[in-house]
Amino acid sequence: MARKKLRIGLIGYGFMGRTHSNAFHQAGRFFDLKYTPELIAVCGRDQANAEAHAANWGFSSIETDWRKLIERDDIDLIDIAAPNNVHHDIAIAAAEAGKMVMCEKPLGRNAAESQAMVAAVEKAGVANMVWYNYRRIPAITLAKQLIDAGKLGRIYHYRAKFLQDWTIADDLPQGGPGLWRLDADVAGSGVTGDLLAHCIDTAMWLNGPIDTVSGTTETFIKERMHSLTGNVAPVTIDDASLFMARFDNGSLATFEATRYARGHKALYTLEINGEHASISWDLHDLNRIEYFDHADESQMRGWRSIHVTDGDHPYMDKWWVPGLSIGYEHSFVHQFADFVASLSSKQPAMPNFRDALATDLVTDAVLKSAKSGKWENAHK
Amino acid sequence: MARKKLRIGLIGYGFMGRTHSNAFHQAGRFFDLKYTPELIAVCGRDQANAEAHAANWGFSSIETDWRKLIERDDIDLIDIAAPNNVHHDIAIAAAEAGKMVMCEKPLGRNAAESQAMVAAVEKAGVANMVWYNYRRIPAITLAKQLIDAGKLGRIYHYRAKFLQDWTIADDLPQGGPGLWRLDADVAGSGVTGDLLAHCIDTAMWLNGPIDTVSGTTETFIKERMHSLTGNVAPVTIDDASLFMARFDNGSLATFEATRYARGHKALYTLEINGEHASISWDLHDLNRIEYFDHADESQMRGWRSIHVTDGDHPYMDKWWVPGLSIGYEHSFVHQFADFVASLSSKQPAMPNFRDALATDLVTDAVLKSAKSGKWENAHK
Amino acid sequence: MARKKLRIGLIGYGFMGRTHSNAFHQAGRFFDLKYTPELIAVCGRDQANAEAHAANWGFSSIETDWRKLIERDDIDLIDIAAPNNVHHDIAIAAAEAGKMVMCEKPLGRNAAESQAMVAAVEKAGVANMVWYNYRRIPAITLAKQLIDAGKLGRIYHYRAKFLQDWTIADDLPQGGPGLWRLDADVAGSGVTGDLLAHCIDTAMWLNGPIDTVSGTTETFIKERMHSLTGNVAPVTIDDASLFMARFDNGSLATFEATRYARGHKALYTLEINGEHASISWDLHDLNRIEYFDHADESQMRGWRSIHVTDGDHPYMDKWWVPGLSIGYEHSFVHQFADFVASLSSKQPAMPNFRDALATDLVTDAVLKSAKSGKWENAHK
Amino acid sequence: MARKKLRIGLIGYGFMGRTHSNAFHQAGRFFDLKYTPELIAVCGRDQANAEAHAANWGFSSIETDWRKLIERDDIDLIDIAAPNNVHHDIAIAAAEAGKMVMCEKPLGRNAAESQAMVAAVEKAGVANMVWYNYRRIPAITLAKQLIDAGKLGRIYHYRAKFLQDWTIADDLPQGGPGLWRLDADVAGSGVTGDLLAHCIDTAMWLNGPIDTVSGTTETFIKERMHSLTGNVAPVTIDDASLFMARFDNGSLATFEATRYARGHKALYTLEINGEHASISWDLHDLNRIEYFDHADESQMRGWRSIHVTDGDHPYMDKWWVPGLSIGYEHSFVHQFADFVASLSSKQPAMPNFRDALATDLVTDAVLKSAKSGKWENAHK
Repeated sequence: MARKKLRIGLIGYGFMGRTHSNAFHQAGRFFDLKYTPELIAVCGRDQANAEAHAANWGFSSIETDWRKLIERDDIDLIDIAAPNNVHHDIAIAAAEAGKMVMCEKPLGRNAAESQAMVAAVEKAGVANMVWYNYRRIPAITLAKQLIDAGKLGRIYHYRAKFLQDWTIADDLPQGGPGLWRLDADVAGSGVTGDLLAHCIDTAMWLNGPIDTVSGTTETFIKERMHSLTGNVAPVTIDDASLFMARFDNGSLATFEATRYARGHKALYTLEINGEHASISWDLHDLNRIEYFDHADESQMRGWRSIHVTDGDHPYMDKWWVPGLSIGYEHSFVHQFADFVASLSSKQPAMPNFRDALATDLVTDAVLKSAKSGKWENAHK
Repeated sequence: MARKKLRIGLIGYGFMGRTHSNAFHQAGRFFDLKYTPELIAVCGRDQANAEAHAANWGFSSIETDWRKLIERDDIDLIDIAAPNNVHHDIAIAAAEAGKMVMCEKPLGRNAAESQAMVAAVEKAGVANMVWYNYRRIPAITLAKQLIDAGKLGRIYHYRAKFLQDWTIADDLPQGGPGLWRLDADVAGSGVTGDLLAHCIDTAMWLNGPIDTVSGTTETFIKERMHSLTGNVAPVTIDDASLFMARFDNGSLATFEATRYARGHKALYTLEINGEHASISWDLHDLNRIEYFDHADESQMRGWRSIHVTDGDHPYMDKWWVPGLSIGYEHSFVHQFADFVASLSSKQPAMPNFRDALATDLVTDAVLKSAKSGKWENAHK
Repeated sequence: MARKKLRIGLIGYGFMGRTHSNAFHQAGRFFDLKYTPELIAVCGRDQANAEAHAANWGFSSIETDWRKLIERDDIDLIDIAAPNNVHHDIAIAAAEAGKMVMCEKPLGRNAAESQAMVAAVEKAGVANMVWYNYRRIPAITLAKQLIDAGKLGRIYHYRAKFLQDWTIADDLPQGGPGLWRLDADVAGSGVTGDLLAHCIDTAMWLNGPIDTVSGTTETFIKERMHSLTGNVAPVTIDDASLFMARFDNGSLATFEATRYARGHKALYTLEINGEHASISWDLHDLNRIEYFDHADESQMRGWRSIHVTDGDHPYMDKWWVPGLSIGYEHSFVHQFADFVASLSSKQPAMPNFRDALATDLVTDAVLKSAKSGKWENAHK
Repeated sequence: MARKKLRIGLIGYGFMGRTHSNAFHQAGRFFDLKYTPELIAVCGRDQANAEAHAANWGFSSIETDWRKLIERDDIDLIDIAAPNNVHHDIAIAAAEAGKMVMCEKPLGRNAAESQAMVAAVEKAGVANMVWYNYRRIPAITLAKQLIDAGKLGRIYHYRAKFLQDWTIADDLPQGGPGLWRLDADVAGSGVTGDLLAHCIDTAMWLNGPIDTVSGTTETFIKERMHSLTGNVAPVTIDDASLFMARFDNGSLATFEATRYARGHKALYTLEINGEHASISWDLHDLNRIEYFDHADESQMRGWRSIHVTDGDHPYMDKWWVPGLSIGYEHSFVHQFADFVASLSSKQPAMPNFRDALATDLVTDAVLKSAKSGKWENAHK
């Protein structure tokens, strides 16, 4: 039986545009997809860049206006890999045009934008997903399975950090090509939306909803030059953001993200302590998970360093043989394969827009708390 | 020239009584002390236990009433290794009797007690020190030297945790022999005073004063049986305590202590991120320090795992040869050797009572914030 | 200017067939190739399998007889990913037909086969390369650069291990589909040619030629059933192989490979100790390299754990951003990109057939020594 | 009931003299000894040094001639911590005088010396022990218990290394005070007897007798100045020594020791792979043992990092609380406590002279093989 086609229009050709395009190609090579991805068009404001991306990744055409892309009949799915400030308009227009929508994280620049986006896709009844790719690191998926199987028992503690150091230099410009993450108008916020959002999405997937938060943020270097205008202006983003949280299940948490942690490139770490067992993980060694099981014989209890590369580990039967690592980009491949699988199942691919809204509610609450100095409700 | 004697009266024969007694013996074997410690008396309420401790450790006599110990003429130094609830009375009485005073941490059960103790030793003009022993782990001392030498530059972040799991079982009694740390009347608080106090002392030594804090605490199991009475009563201590902090130098911090982190026995960890370099350390591998230096050649930058056992590392010329580890108890030996050295120098041994009061001000502020839900001043 | 085409015929659709096919696709997406790979045909004895591989990976046609593949005019390059016992015949026929040849490792089942293969490609003057892919792990390439730059100084020691545990069960069959590595007729030897060959290739690349070896081998389970015939027969391969070596540069080495090291999946490790610095690496954490530099300030000397994912690390400017890992298959992508680059340069891609012959001379010497009980010359 | 006295005469006041003296003191503080050690005399050729050692460690008297020490009636036990070249004469004289004898390792400079020493103590029927202290690292003792309990099943592989780097500098003198380990006349051999001997003792304790060996040695710097005479002379010791071994139980092994492994101070490591489980350990992190158990649930198999500091771990009920490390010197304390315990039991303390002779037979075989280039029998 012939496979159906899944005709894709991608918006954005930057870092995330590359990870998505790679996923579209690799998913079919390694997973048995029921739909064949077709790369119909890539869209970006710069025509030369769009053409280069199309040539490199095999897109059949380009657009320089996303509205035109959405108008096209030959596209089933709009994938948004553009900066955060256009997520809202594109996603709503795409949903209204009846397209499936995949969107890079965070969903909106704030929960209000995200709420409108959720309303649009739910009203339209179109498939939708947000690229919180870390759920599909096999080690993280395994953690989810262990928790769901009750291996940890009651959860007492959760802690997550996302540490980087790339903005420490005080002569780094803010804003402009490749630097929009340093401009709050475009990005919505600094590390809160960029890095903490990842930590929060994983945390709520593994440990359920967050109830209340108390946070604080800091901008260490107060003024920077803009890369396009050359003007020195106040820095609008948060360089560091940290918060305490209480989950609905009664567990306590600390979260921290910063771009001022010298020595860390992209050190997303998490740890979860349960009554019976604990788990920890970090992105720099993404093929491993550390697991402690109190049920082990007393003298021989210790943290197990599990190399999550066996055939019975999540996703790993699709790749190589035990002991052979996969990398960062594979998480996108897995997520896209799951999305395609969801199209012929009754289970929507997670996280969908509504799931991602929940994360934006938490980041909004963190930013609100950072101003109020009080605990804030993360559910609304 | 004959060495002077330092005649010691120890109060307490428990876990800390043993670490101190060991330090009194070992310091002279490995360090060139200007005073010879003489173990005059050990004092404890249980005569048989006191006698056993005296026999084992070579104390010449025992007392069962600490007031009598303080009255004795043949003692220069009172060392308090008894539970927290008697620190205040003993220390003040000892100071008033003109004795030098060493006291286990935390100094008082709260800052008010500590304030009175500071006033007493300062009025009496007697040498005083608090056993925040982790400052004397060679790796921590080395960290202090690196920071003081400016290797890290401006500090952006500090984070510390003290994770244990020994109270998770819900049939564990509270209070009574060996369990007084679970009784707030005796201990003052739970992990805040027991574990966080260590983290705070080290942090302020390395990174300067803490300005404000926002904290929260939790008691996971609400009622426990008392080991002496058999009565079930509400648990009065905090099982977990975590807080965010801002230091006077502008750096941000997270602190956490808990006895509900499955898989961790005594995992005191700290990390400090500066403009130029970062440091991290943990108590389970206490002979190592991790160090990242951004000044390293770009391609070869990485966290260095330094085995702090060379002759040019702090204290290590006194022990064995490079690569050979020391253990936990050595931190007490170092601290006592430093105390003795301070008696013939103009520099008081750190941390003294006033230093330890600063820590109690922070723990008080954390507990206050946990109730108020707001940021609290940690200086007063 | 239009790129030239590089028309590829692949022989073999197993584990290595997949890694090569993936490399053909990915190289052009991430590297600026001067030739465009075209996947003309895949060849294998089982038609259905060959068709499935062609469909999945985009080969235009299939062959079931490798001789026919070589006869085709529309192919520039023959890539051999078939079992070891056919490397010799295919490579020589391909060379004689004027095709470029890439061959999986080991080159031949023994040095005599390899010698003939070298003669064939050199006589034909065709480009040739052997897939010792680990040279192209960025961490290993970085090690090579550091050594070549003199960072290590005189080399004293080299040690390498390749530890697996997948054949421990005594009911595992030998030979047949997926198990030809357990049949010496097909594979040439056991772990000596399969695993040690990798260790030796890297070692001689990093540390120069091996002069003499003294080795020993063991077969722990003496008889196994054949998966096709069901007959129980003596096991012909070596389960474990270890040897001592002296390099031409005077350094000493130990090498070990086994499939009986419980707890290790594919733990290829190496360490090299020089006068000034040392390096170690392992395949389970392939993005890291450990580096010790004696020139570091004395108190702060330690092994640096370098996460080889920065833009100035070998190959890594082609992938993502600092801190984001790549995986096993990327080594093949790098190697193929280097091969293509070599076609328009004067530098042949390494390792070529002659380089791979040197490795086979060492494995032959190891096996000879295992029988003689003496040191054997590894140069001939 | 009064404890008996154990009157000790120590010969040697260097590094090992200090570790033994410390053990004599600490054993009684932490273990319930049936005999009370009395430090009667310390003996050394330099009177001032002997007096300093006596003063520091509480020996009642000194001797400068070991023969006089042995003649004394007030001594039960002669402990030899002098350089290797006097072990033989002292031990035999002590045994003949009816003294118990403890001796630093290696027992003799070669097996012939050791054989005579074994004969002497066995003829005299005196208690005897050799200070292979690493058996008493709790992690190693735990490994022994696991192996004896059958947790590992059939053993396939053993590997051990002892890596140092302190002799790399070519201006280091050989011989003289503190440097006798670099003089083969005194030491017997270089790293073979100094470092490999430790590895071999542990290995045979854990894995049984070694049957045959094939080894090689190297002296990287051929001439050095003598520290006393100033004369430049050929270096007589081995800087590096490595060998392959076959144990009686059929397992294969590699052993290596060197003082030319840049970056390693005293890195004694071992790993043992069994049918069901594996163990690894290293001296730089001596409180940990790594353990892999194939019986763990498939998805959750990993190397467990066990912090061997719990009350149910060997020796650890005597020290502090879980998570708190001990150090190098504790292994001597444990060994002495075990020796004292053996005096009132029917079990001699291990390893005794005969056990240590077995190690010397192996080191002799390694050195013989290094000359012959062949496998040599390690049993005789």
